[in-house]
Amino acid sequence: MDLPQYLKRRQRWVNDGLKRWVPAINEFPPQIHEAVHYSLFAGGKRLRPILALAGAEAVGGRARDALPLACALELIHTYSLIHDDLPAMDNDDLRRGKPTSHRVFGEALAILAGDALLTEAFRLMARTDLMTRVPLQRILRAMGQVAQAAGPQGMVGGQALDILTQGEKIDAPLLEYIHSHKTGALITAAVCGGAIIGGGSEREIKALRGYGEKLGLAFQVIDDLLDVQGKKGRMGKGVGKDQSQGKATYPALYGATGSRRMAEEFIAEALAWIASFSRRANPLREMAHFVLSRKS
Amino acid sequence: MDLPQYLKRRQRWVNDGLKRWVPAINEFPPQIHEAVHYSLFAGGKRLRPILALAGAEAVGGRARDALPLACALELIHTYSLIHDDLPAMDNDDLRRGKPTSHRVFGEALAILAGDALLTEAFRLMARTDLMTRVPLQRILRAMGQVAQAAGPQGMVGGQALDILTQGEKIDAPLLEYIHSHKTGALITAAVCGGAIIGGGSEREIKALRGYGEKLGLAFQVIDDLLDVQGKKGRMGKGVGKDQSQGKATYPALYGATGSRRMAEEFIAEALAWIASFSRRANPLREMAHFVLSRKS
Repeated sequence: MDLPQYLKRRQRWVNDGLKRWVPAINEFPPQIHEAVHYSLFAGGKRLRPILALAGAEAVGGRARDALPLACALELIHTYSLIHDDLPAMDNDDLRRGKPTSHRVFGEALAILAGDALLTEAFRLMARTDLMTRVPLQRILRAMGQVAQAAGPQGMVGGQALDILTQGEKIDAPLLEYIHSHKTGALITAAVCGGAIIGGGSEREIKALRGYGEKLGLAFQVIDDLLDVQGKKGRMGKGVGKDQSQGKATYPALYGATGSRRMAEEFIAEALAWIASFSRRANPLREMAHFVLSRKS
Repeated sequence: MDLPQYLKRRQRWVNDGLKRWVPAINEFPPQIHEAVHYSLFAGGKRLRPILALAGAEAVGGRARDALPLACALELIHTYSLIHDDLPAMDNDDLRRGKPTSHRVFGEALAILAGDALLTEAFRLMARTDLMTRVPLQRILRAMGQVAQAAGPQGMVGGQALDILTQGEKIDAPLLEYIHSHKTGALITAAVCGGAIIGGGSEREIKALRGYGEKLGLAFQVIDDLLDVQGKKGRMGKGVGKDQSQGKATYPALYGATGSRRMAEEFIAEALAWIASFSRRANPLREMAHFVLSRKS
């Protein structure tokens, strides 16, 4: 399959969905909607939504049915970036090549834009009118999994620990905890959520959970490596920040070569989880390879 | 009916629900759960949850069925207080008689505690296992209404405008916009959400929306009056802050006597909306009178 072509087509789906379903930029009061649109349409890769669509496909469901869930995941991801960048958190000036939300709109509006995005995500997932072919039980189950993954037992918990351990020496289990919660949980919820909407069996959902967890870990290892090695222009955000902020990273614990090897191993494990799936899981397979090769 | 007794009993329901359904304080990482519990169990009146329970009752439903929704509304209300108090927003040091979240846990954790509470609210509303007697369509519809009321077209939009207009002279329509969105939307969603869960007819839901909107406005007028006239100890938060922050208030526009008269009128209108309801709506009637007489 032609992955770049596939990704581009799916990005268009997601962008169209977001444009249609998120309040328009000229709604009142304009500033909050401007701030939401500014971060939401800043050129994200739409990895999480595409994983959700691919999760639905992999179990034989219709990808289209998972589009509201997919878009909701991007809303949640975008909110988390805005809040992570705040002065009280990572204090970042640059994101996706543009000044961060609080640099443009001020801290108050950046906090509120994040709050708006998170809330809109759940409003979108509750829109049964957009998912008339999906049994309601599946919608509620997928929402519950996404909420669990995004909340204090997932992403928020990982971010809290990341902030609290800055400058401290942390060991491998703690590092894996941070990353599996901060990044991995939402990636896993994307794949599983899509599979739930798509009508996957318990066995399939379990396998896709395994795939998502390993993919999420690989993704974070590569992210850490890019922070060390990446070029500022290509990354679209400050690089070398992890180290200067005293953050725990894989390269710091295992070195660049060791980290690279770990990422490859995680991807091999991710692929093993879906080895018995049909060719409908090929997009998930290709995306696993893509995570390993990405340069930004 | 004995309102104080009724409120106390319902507060106990809500507190029990919150304790049972929110992650325990000793879960990992402890700091985030401590921050969540600190604000959630700071002695709130539980007005929104009790309105949701009363909304379900008023249409002949079982109040118990609306308890997860009711608790979720308190989670959302608590998140909004934490974020509103942040230095970048209202910069308040005191809330419910205790130091605000960011004063105790720092800004980063306060932001994350708010994020956690908002996310947990939707996780709780999606827990069909707690609402086995409620049709799923009702659950999703109530969630959608709550999300709409809490998001950029509701509470977050109102808060954004409140922040953006600080120090500016604003007129009556704008003041009503801010309050109907910042405070009124969630109060309305509480009453209506409860009625939806309780199986109310479209006609009943519409009437309860009218009730909620007027109640919310009265609530805010009284809040403004208490800020001017209240005693610091009783309010549990700084008083006179609205004026010192250059905030638009009803007393500033209409004077104390005029504001008082407006609140009484709003309550009369709220009661008119539910005049044809049976005595099952008595708790809603009593609570309308209560809003007018509250001292803190």
